[in-house]
Amino acid sequence: MSSYNLAVVGATGLVGGKILKVLEERNFPLSKLKLLASARSVGKKIKFKGEEYSVEETTFSSFSGLEIALFASAEAASDRFGWEAVKRGAVVIDNSNTFRMDPKVPLIVPEVNPQDLKRHQGLIANPNCSTIQMVVALYPLHKAAKIKRIVVSTYQAVSGWGTLANEELKEQTEDIVKGRAPKVNSKIFPYQIAFNVIPQVDKFLSSGYTKEEQKMVQETKKIMEDDNIKVSATCVRVPVYVSHSEAVNIETEKKLKVDEVREILKKAPGVAIIDEVEDLKYPLPLEAAGRDEVFVGRIREDETIERGLNLWIVSDNLLKGAALNAVQIAEEMIKMRLV
Amino acid sequence: MSSYNLAVVGATGLVGGKILKVLEERNFPLSKLKLLASARSVGKKIKFKGEEYSVEETTFSSFSGLEIALFASAEAASDRFGWEAVKRGAVVIDNSNTFRMDPKVPLIVPEVNPQDLKRHQGLIANPNCSTIQMVVALYPLHKAAKIKRIVVSTYQAVSGWGTLANEELKEQTEDIVKGRAPKVNSKIFPYQIAFNVIPQVDKFLSSGYTKEEQKMVQETKKIMEDDNIKVSATCVRVPVYVSHSEAVNIETEKKLKVDEVREILKKAPGVAIIDEVEDLKYPLPLEAAGRDEVFVGRIREDETIERGLNLWIVSDNLLKGAALNAVQIAEEMIKMRLV
Repeated sequence: MSSYNLAVVGATGLVGGKILKVLEERNFPLSKLKLLASARSVGKKIKFKGEEYSVEETTFSSFSGLEIALFASAEAASDRFGWEAVKRGAVVIDNSNTFRMDPKVPLIVPEVNPQDLKRHQGLIANPNCSTIQMVVALYPLHKAAKIKRIVVSTYQAVSGWGTLANEELKEQTEDIVKGRAPKVNSKIFPYQIAFNVIPQVDKFLSSGYTKEEQKMVQETKKIMEDDNIKVSATCVRVPVYVSHSEAVNIETEKKLKVDEVREILKKAPGVAIIDEVEDLKYPLPLEAAGRDEVFVGRIREDETIERGLNLWIVSDNLLKGAALNAVQIAEEMIKMRLV
Repeated sequence: MSSYNLAVVGATGLVGGKILKVLEERNFPLSKLKLLASARSVGKKIKFKGEEYSVEETTFSSFSGLEIALFASAEAASDRFGWEAVKRGAVVIDNSNTFRMDPKVPLIVPEVNPQDLKRHQGLIANPNCSTIQMVVALYPLHKAAKIKRIVVSTYQAVSGWGTLANEELKEQTEDIVKGRAPKVNSKIFPYQIAFNVIPQVDKFLSSGYTKEEQKMVQETKKIMEDDNIKVSATCVRVPVYVSHSEAVNIETEKKLKVDEVREILKKAPGVAIIDEVEDLKYPLPLEAAGRDEVFVGRIREDETIERGLNLWIVSDNLLKGAALNAVQIAEEMIKMRLV
């Protein structure tokens, strides 16, 4: 088995750190590991498999001699360095929103559309966290019964917005527990997130929808390769550190009964069913945190339409929603001999 | 103007306390106020308009000489004392689930179906909190464009489950802040609620839906007096103390544009619009707490169907969702000379 020269760009961030953990745990075949970040992180030390690595500044020349670059940095860095890294010979797997809807760029969830990797031109996009967990659970149902419409409401963890968001929730909570007025730093969440929910994830568009909601609409179609799937999304931030939850209502072309859904999802890659409500078993964000699977529960027929279903889908937004999916894309490309 | 002999049953509970506050603030015309509760609260002192009242044990004879009894106690107390209080001459407004679907019992939201009070037989039911705020916002749209189907996902505050639930969230949060393992008291929430969301509100039914979800389906039809309205609900508990939030998707018979929705809701009783997303203005549970209104925002056309809308509806579950609505029912009955 070959091994690869790989860089993690944005290695000091929340997703960057998770990528390193996933590479370590999965024993990813590395000959060389480079940790890249912006100038202000240069010199930071990060341990990987017991060895200490120094963070280097990302520059164009950083990518020479690399075979794989996993980008977990801000959009600006992806924008600046993405194609430059490809030019220098690296395959780029980018976690940001920058290239996801670019027709030249495959948008990949390995359980759903690995075949799209074949047409890659050096840069592959990792989808948005909320979309990944939804399509992992829904694609097997789509194959069996064709999904016509999805109405989804999300319950999204703060870590989707990065380290500072986690700190903000923590500090606000501490302030409240200690009887102090919680500080709101409008650069992260525009309102207090502790003991509150905020019906806004990412920026607003002129349509009245947010970018996050638009991502769920557009990315679902691209990943499932079906422009006819209609998605109506409401994305909401909740005071949870890790794991996004989603209340998902779908309408299918062919009728699916609950038992059939269970049979299909039992065999579905990356999916774990937790659905024994008589014993109060259903997916919870706290229990999904740190796990690789997409958890599905509360599977119910929706009798308000002829062929409807309700599902509750939960997954670790930093793992399957980001780091794990990126590493799985790299593994898939190795398997397909595309890198 | 007449004044009335009134009792609050369950006066020591979370909703009972709120009822007293609402009666005080609205200067409800009282000649006599009786505070009733179970035996273990007897002798507790509660202040009302500067005067101290002693809590008495609820017995059948408690209701003699009363004109109005507001029940904010557990279902068992409503079941035992509800009709007995009516027999003794009181009009009962009951906040529990006990009588809501009883055909003899009007289920009232004064902004929606005050006319149903005319057929009362002494006992009136106050609807479930999640249902009240939804129908206050949706009924004006239903009148204008006939709602065919509702898909709702809730983000429900812990206070819907009473004082102990508030304490549980508080204690778990404190434990986590102080580095201790949070205690889970399975009598309240079956899992940790701090920094988690739980896709279960009330008990599970054999259908796979919860009682709370069933309430939203059944009560909406009864209050809006339209059995053809289809409701598909997913009810979820979030770590918020006060105010329920709801992501609501509706399909109407007649097309409604966003501007039309705004015009209709501007004139709707009990509704306040907060919907200027360019300035990041939308309803938040933290800001709705302590307020009387049902707040509506994030009004968007849902283009996945021909005549669809998405709305975000937030209201104080203890006020409009419980205490305020109960007192408003009493006020409405006085106005209609039914008491």
